[in-house]
Amino acid sequence: MKNCTKKEIINVELKENSYEINLGSQNINELGEIISHVTEGRNVGVITNPAIGEIYFAKVKASLEKSGLCCSRIDIPEGEEHKNFNSLKKIYSELLKNNFDRKSILVALGGGIVGDITGFAAASFMRGVPFVQVPTSLLAMVDSSVGGKTGINLPEGKNLVGAIYQPKHVLIDVDMLISLSPAEFNAGMAEVIKYAFISKHGDLINILRNRVDDIKRLNPTCLKEIIKSSCEIKAQIVSEDECETKDIRSFLNFGHTFGHAVESITNYKEFRHGEAVSIGMVYAGILSKLMETGFQEE
Amino acid sequence: MKNCTKKEIINVELKENSYEINLGSQNINELGEIISHVTEGRNVGVITNPAIGEIYFAKVKASLEKSGLCCSRIDIPEGEEHKNFNSLKKIYSELLKNNFDRKSILVALGGGIVGDITGFAAASFMRGVPFVQVPTSLLAMVDSSVGGKTGINLPEGKNLVGAIYQPKHVLIDVDMLISLSPAEFNAGMAEVIKYAFISKHGDLINILRNRVDDIKRLNPTCLKEIIKSSCEIKAQIVSEDECETKDIRSFLNFGHTFGHAVESITNYKEFRHGEAVSIGMVYAGILSKLMETGFQEE
Repeated sequence: MKNCTKKEIINVELKENSYEINLGSQNINELGEIISHVTEGRNVGVITNPAIGEIYFAKVKASLEKSGLCCSRIDIPEGEEHKNFNSLKKIYSELLKNNFDRKSILVALGGGIVGDITGFAAASFMRGVPFVQVPTSLLAMVDSSVGGKTGINLPEGKNLVGAIYQPKHVLIDVDMLISLSPAEFNAGMAEVIKYAFISKHGDLINILRNRVDDIKRLNPTCLKEIIKSSCEIKAQIVSEDECETKDIRSFLNFGHTFGHAVESITNYKEFRHGEAVSIGMVYAGILSKLMETGFQEE
Repeated sequence: MKNCTKKEIINVELKENSYEINLGSQNINELGEIISHVTEGRNVGVITNPAIGEIYFAKVKASLEKSGLCCSRIDIPEGEEHKNFNSLKKIYSELLKNNFDRKSILVALGGGIVGDITGFAAASFMRGVPFVQVPTSLLAMVDSSVGGKTGINLPEGKNLVGAIYQPKHVLIDVDMLISLSPAEFNAGMAEVIKYAFISKHGDLINILRNRVDDIKRLNPTCLKEIIKSSCEIKAQIVSEDECETKDIRSFLNFGHTFGHAVESITNYKEFRHGEAVSIGMVYAGILSKLMETGFQEE
């Protein structure tokens, strides 16, 4: 993947909770400077998991320390089954051990699970500290890192405890996608395709149709285009309906009703979230067609 | 205590999070009607503890059912040591068992502990459901039920996890103070005295000076006056600094720095919060005087 320094800024407009998505390649080294601008705290807790921390923590630490920030790493175990109270308690406990206070900052360095749990830890630690999302998976870049949905699972079900709590900033470095497995990348593409379908204009669907080879080759310029377009579509919807009270945000659930059913009957073990959403979109399309034409046999 | 039906409404101005405090005597029977007005949900979870539930739950239930609301009682054990994750998990679990969803409502029926934990359960269950405070102690009426500070304790310290999350309504029935022990009442008076000192005008301090006998006799008209004045002072400060970011809300901490020290060195076992705050206010006063006159011996 060649270096491509052109940077994009996407604004998520939410009145006093507004923030920017900084989208680039090899822009992870700007994290320290960005954090210095968005909050006055100096103590940064980087929440990650062992595999992702191994690859990226050193870079993150270097950038933070270059800006005079003090950096601690907190690992949570990998996997959806660890998006729970135990991991949350571990984060609180480590923060307290490192003398974090209300001016400290959290960074979510990872995919959707790390992002969701870090966001909720930030929402609830000392009644709220600022946090920054650094998504490392395509799914997290285009979906979970934007919009402020944070939370953990209960034994009774997914995301039953959480908060709508916006990050101060989202930094997306498309070069991080190199470390993603093809299956994870494809699962992320499912949400990209979802945005293409729910969008009011055809820009994203045209890129997806015309640039299949560039996408497969992880061409950074092309990846930035599809991530930018996805984030813009999500940002627009979230701006209109931050707390999911107006039925607008439900557009984001396209494919998710059937998708959740598929995940649920397979105990969240057989399909990745994005894979289930792909199946869900197909069934939602079939249902939609049937509702138009009627359910009778031909 | 004679019935005294005159009702007071105090507005807590917080833009889209604004709400009313309904202050009266024997107004608990209006709860159902109030809830029907502030939210469209029908499923109400009343969080309380065994002792308070025993006295007041039947009245609350009758009022809710008269307004066509469906009511479940969830008890948490009494005592500061139970303001923790276990009680929180019990609440989530009972809510799910009773098919509560994002449109359900919680009611905090109790003192500060019940109010704090119910508020945080409401803030976090399914990323936020509405809740109403029905404080039963003087301390909760004048202090913890107003202002949106919610939370639980960690083994490492008090209120380390929580949210600023405003109730939809606060209903204060001064007749509930009858069931309070004199020691609890006096502890609540400490916060009332605090408001008298931090207030910009002398109204409350004059009531406290001139109507000692009425206060001791729990005269409902007089109690309403001092609770109204306390709530107005707190509401004004909270309106100006909801999230404690401007140093204005710190006025509410008068007596609390020394007070927390007193509570901490006695392991939260020797003094009630209000008692510790009383001691704290005396020491803060002495310190303030010393800072003015200098610390040298006379």
